[in-house]
Amino acid sequence: MTPIVGVIGGGQLARMMIPAALGLGIEIRVLAEIDGSSAGLAATTVGDYRDEGTVLRFAEGVDVITFDHEHVPQAILSTLVERGVAVRPGPHALLLAQDKILMRERLSALGLPVPDWARVGTADDLAAFLDSHGGTAVLKTATGGYDGKGVRVVTDAAGAADWLGEGYPLLVEELVHFRRELAQLVARRPSGEIVGWPVVESVQRDGVCAEVIAPAPASAGKISDVAFDIATTVASELDVTGVLAVELFETTDDRLLVNELAMRPHNTGHWTIDGSTTSQFEQHLRAVLDLPLGATGCRDEWSVMVNVLGGPVTGSLTDRYPAALADQPTVKLHAYGKDPRPGRKIGHATAGGDDLDEVVWRARAAAALLGSEAAG
Amino acid sequence: MTPIVGVIGGGQLARMMIPAALGLGIEIRVLAEIDGSSAGLAATTVGDYRDEGTVLRFAEGVDVITFDHEHVPQAILSTLVERGVAVRPGPHALLLAQDKILMRERLSALGLPVPDWARVGTADDLAAFLDSHGGTAVLKTATGGYDGKGVRVVTDAAGAADWLGEGYPLLVEELVHFRRELAQLVARRPSGEIVGWPVVESVQRDGVCAEVIAPAPASAGKISDVAFDIATTVASELDVTGVLAVELFETTDDRLLVNELAMRPHNTGHWTIDGSTTSQFEQHLRAVLDLPLGATGCRDEWSVMVNVLGGPVTGSLTDRYPAALADQPTVKLHAYGKDPRPGRKIGHATAGGDDLDEVVWRARAAAALLGSEAAG
Repeated sequence: MTPIVGVIGGGQLARMMIPAALGLGIEIRVLAEIDGSSAGLAATTVGDYRDEGTVLRFAEGVDVITFDHEHVPQAILSTLVERGVAVRPGPHALLLAQDKILMRERLSALGLPVPDWARVGTADDLAAFLDSHGGTAVLKTATGGYDGKGVRVVTDAAGAADWLGEGYPLLVEELVHFRRELAQLVARRPSGEIVGWPVVESVQRDGVCAEVIAPAPASAGKISDVAFDIATTVASELDVTGVLAVELFETTDDRLLVNELAMRPHNTGHWTIDGSTTSQFEQHLRAVLDLPLGATGCRDEWSVMVNVLGGPVTGSLTDRYPAALADQPTVKLHAYGKDPRPGRKIGHATAGGDDLDEVVWRARAAAALLGSEAAG
Repeated sequence: MTPIVGVIGGGQLARMMIPAALGLGIEIRVLAEIDGSSAGLAATTVGDYRDEGTVLRFAEGVDVITFDHEHVPQAILSTLVERGVAVRPGPHALLLAQDKILMRERLSALGLPVPDWARVGTADDLAAFLDSHGGTAVLKTATGGYDGKGVRVVTDAAGAADWLGEGYPLLVEELVHFRRELAQLVARRPSGEIVGWPVVESVQRDGVCAEVIAPAPASAGKISDVAFDIATTVASELDVTGVLAVELFETTDDRLLVNELAMRPHNTGHWTIDGSTTSQFEQHLRAVLDLPLGATGCRDEWSVMVNVLGGPVTGSLTDRYPAALADQPTVKLHAYGKDPRPGRKIGHATAGGDDLDEVVWRARAAAALLGSEAAG
């Protein structure tokens, strides 16, 4: 029988699972929020993932449910599990990707390296944390944040007034002095097998991933080993199935601290489509179906991925193809089928080769020709 | 605006265009013969490609029509062109892929190297050809043949009796003494740009492509140059747009002779999905949309593709995944979503690496674990 994977969410992550599903000969069904979503080609249901009836009907007949995003309410996830649907990653793992306070508590309990942090219940809590951490810190809403949303740098308690007024659960973290940001992706299947890709460097701009260099320069040896150990500990201890992305700070005093977790394919793994023997999307499908995982070696000495953002230039992405494709015949383009609203991720470009500077240049050149804000 | 490509035919070639279309952010629509076809995910019409009304309705609103196979009747192709639909490759080119007599005439007129051949109108025609070619020759129906069908070796005129009796247009060719079979794939866009992949060696079994080695061993230099020259001449002179596959005999006296042409992605180019910077499927879409063509360098020193055939082993392809994927984590599998009838191509496996023997071994091992007849 052909295995059937149901993906909740119709964004670009679901879209990029489609080629992997075709290659493996498995059926992919998508629950999309809207008509014309990025993964619309595989959408069998258009509806609200926060509606239990919609999700239960979508899940009928699938072998496993997985996700394009982490926002499905816990109550619905629990109902799915109660009804015998395989949900991967499971509700208990996803909870920690949904709630940064619970995530910090759990990682701290596991002895994993995290920034200093505290819950914030009152303005006084925040003031106390600021006093003991040099007067500047990072305030986060526990839930609902992504791509820089729900995160702000604060220097006084007034900076939390609106969020406290709204009753958001908040946490505060030390402002980490980091040299760079890294990401370690691994995949884990229910039977326990874990594989990882090389640790990568991610360059953020305005809170959004802009560029990824794989592997992270000068990461061989200790950094690579520590990053992999952290990610495998998180995946095993939290019982994550599928792809897990661990975003890390490399501090100026040579420590690695866990920043965020994502329990799904992740922007920092898009390079694997062209740069690794097994892409994160294929691996995610293999993992959630409990199939043997694929090899994760690099196909090039260096791979560089640059996001393409919608920008002030008008017209669709495809209007800019003739110039971009002619200029950069070696760069691989991945379009997300989205309207090019300013600042929105509408695609990415990946280049590979032996000379990092030259590879970066090619990927940036292609992205710059495709989206006006990507060149940076 | 998002370009829309309409593909006539719902087989594995159309299926493998889907990931390329998703990457490029173009819309792909498939006219499939049946429900549940290999390319069913993108099927917007299920119907008969020999019915003009069906094809015309399918073509409404698409930017270009292209093909999974070469069997669309000329009358329908001409009507499409008259109505202003871009058809690529065009009817005049496709005619030569549909009719081996016309193809041989045209290639001979261009001075391209072909086996000795003749039309066969009567048993006497065949007897005369056999007399002058050592008593053995290859008889072919001019139209309708593929994968060894419509081809037979004959030693006397009786061997043609049934086909002559049916009134099939026939041609006879010398039995070429060849060292091996090669294939040269190129892509050409309407504005004239042509790019080619390295010439490959194809190993046929029972008239069906079984294995492809890319590049063809010991093909650097003259063989490679001659093959590329032949293919570019064919593409330019016949005004082929999209991918053109030229199947070649390398004779025991060191000549290259044109065997067959295919004006679409081809089994001998499947290795490009994993082994080349630009796959034949992406290139075909770029070419028929007249977009700049992608780079065609090899990603590995050697790529080997082995077809997976349905066989006497029962059960679906996916039943055999756990063993195959665990045994060969570096091999890339491409399933066609087809029932595993004996002898039917149901997928292929591609391996890459530096050591040809080892690469062949890995690809064959994966294919053998996936389909019982593939190990050979």
